[in-house]
Amino acid sequence: MNKIVECVPNFSEGKNLKIINAIFNASKIKNVKSFELEYNKDHNRCLFTIVGSPEDVLNSVFESIKIATKLIDMNKHVGEHPRIGATDVVPFVPVSAVTMEECVALSNKLAQKVAEELKIPVFMYEVSAKRKENKNLADIRRGEYQGLKIKMNKPDYGPDKIHPTAGAIVIGARKYLIAYNVNLDTKDINIAKNIAKTIREKDGGLKAVKALGFEVDGMAQISMNLVDFEKTNFDAAFNAVKLVADKLGVKIKNSEIYGMIPLESLVKAIKSTFKADAFKSGQVLEKKLYE
Amino acid sequence: MNKIVECVPNFSEGKNLKIINAIFNASKIKNVKSFELEYNKDHNRCLFTIVGSPEDVLNSVFESIKIATKLIDMNKHVGEHPRIGATDVVPFVPVSAVTMEECVALSNKLAQKVAEELKIPVFMYEVSAKRKENKNLADIRRGEYQGLKIKMNKPDYGPDKIHPTAGAIVIGARKYLIAYNVNLDTKDINIAKNIAKTIREKDGGLKAVKALGFEVDGMAQISMNLVDFEKTNFDAAFNAVKLVADKLGVKIKNSEIYGMIPLESLVKAIKSTFKADAFKSGQVLEKKLYE
Repeated sequence: MNKIVECVPNFSEGKNLKIINAIFNASKIKNVKSFELEYNKDHNRCLFTIVGSPEDVLNSVFESIKIATKLIDMNKHVGEHPRIGATDVVPFVPVSAVTMEECVALSNKLAQKVAEELKIPVFMYEVSAKRKENKNLADIRRGEYQGLKIKMNKPDYGPDKIHPTAGAIVIGARKYLIAYNVNLDTKDINIAKNIAKTIREKDGGLKAVKALGFEVDGMAQISMNLVDFEKTNFDAAFNAVKLVADKLGVKIKNSEIYGMIPLESLVKAIKSTFKADAFKSGQVLEKKLYE
Repeated sequence: MNKIVECVPNFSEGKNLKIINAIFNASKIKNVKSFELEYNKDHNRCLFTIVGSPEDVLNSVFESIKIATKLIDMNKHVGEHPRIGATDVVPFVPVSAVTMEECVALSNKLAQKVAEELKIPVFMYEVSAKRKENKNLADIRRGEYQGLKIKMNKPDYGPDKIHPTAGAIVIGARKYLIAYNVNLDTKDINIAKNIAKTIREKDGGLKAVKALGFEVDGMAQISMNLVDFEKTNFDAAFNAVKLVADKLGVKIKNSEIYGMIPLESLVKAIKSTFKADAFKSGQVLEKKLYE
């Protein structure tokens, strides 16, 4: 089975399309796919997704980091979004046949390459964090680029002081996040809030589930982030919402998988819903096309 | 979205590994995947699966047909399985973003090429059949290679008499067939037979579902062929079996998707089970890798 990782690098440029495209296009090396380029003028920030084998994805994102280092000057950067460098944050995410440990190793390999070849200090975050206080991205970003100049502590890789134009970079590994919403056949937002509270991990519900109740287009919606679908997949989230909704006498209108989803999540949902114990992603015909 | 078709060519050689591999390897051209080579000595027959774009799959299977024509002499062929030629039958199957009409056109294109370049008569079958009596493969095969010599009617393409060593070829287009079994928590085969009868199309059940009751490993099994998953997908088959089993007080032990399955079938099952109306295969991350 092919090892597949995802990488979603964020860069501090959201206005200049020439620069944005140069960074995005640099990632388009052989054997990887880059897609879903997003940019925002107010945040002055862009991001995209790369998928492929671990080694290819590392080489792809490094090309983009090189270009961003060349083209973005953080001394001239203004934007609403907190940021610490030209390349701001680079998470690696296991997608298929890859362990979290392999993604952590990959993030360290990239960090070393960035430090040595580009002379940029690197902080490791999330599962790759080497210090507890660096686990959370928001904590590293506090003070942002300007603050960094003053409070810069010893980074995990690279020079002790920030790069004169590119600042610093945060690199790490994290689990795949599935955005999943369930819409109820009611406008009563309190019911959605109630259900969200019952099912989310914070309040004693399902593992690795974050949930909030909203009103969207006149419907009460339970909006969920499934931060570890191996613990709680969307089928279990749906069933949990349905169980509470049934008790409250409310029907489910529909549900919504938002954005991209790994094949393994679908396979897992099929396995458990239809007791198809032996089913595996290798049986999916299209998978042959990238093996 | 990429157009993907599947082709499962059958050849009249199941003993000589040199010939089998030569035929199989000939199909491995750029941009297609060939896999699941199966062969059987008693049937003296081999088959494999090719997936890729319509044009690439046509070129791939043509390479195999060329080699089979060269290496197999039907005058020397002996085997249990009915057959009419060195290349026996070549079905094209729509997998993704391809209509049945496109597969019918593809089968005709291949038939023309085979007739012109290899001088082999071609009969069109299944959805591609030009005559009602040729729809069913078994009807064309009646009499087999030996019989063909005598009763040969005008083929749909190519010469009026069979090729001296390669016989004739049956080419066509058909729907994807999903083999799906549901095992019951009982040994009572009559319950499985009962459920099979209730749910199969022949006896007024679900559209495009063939079903039989068996005993497998001490479990009663409903063994199904879903011959058009757009009409009845495995989730609907599972739910129908469950409904009847519930009434009979029998539990479902597990279910089994046998062999390969198109991504679209999984997506369809997810959509209907979780009311994820807007979900589409383009959201599956791995799909990016072959787009």
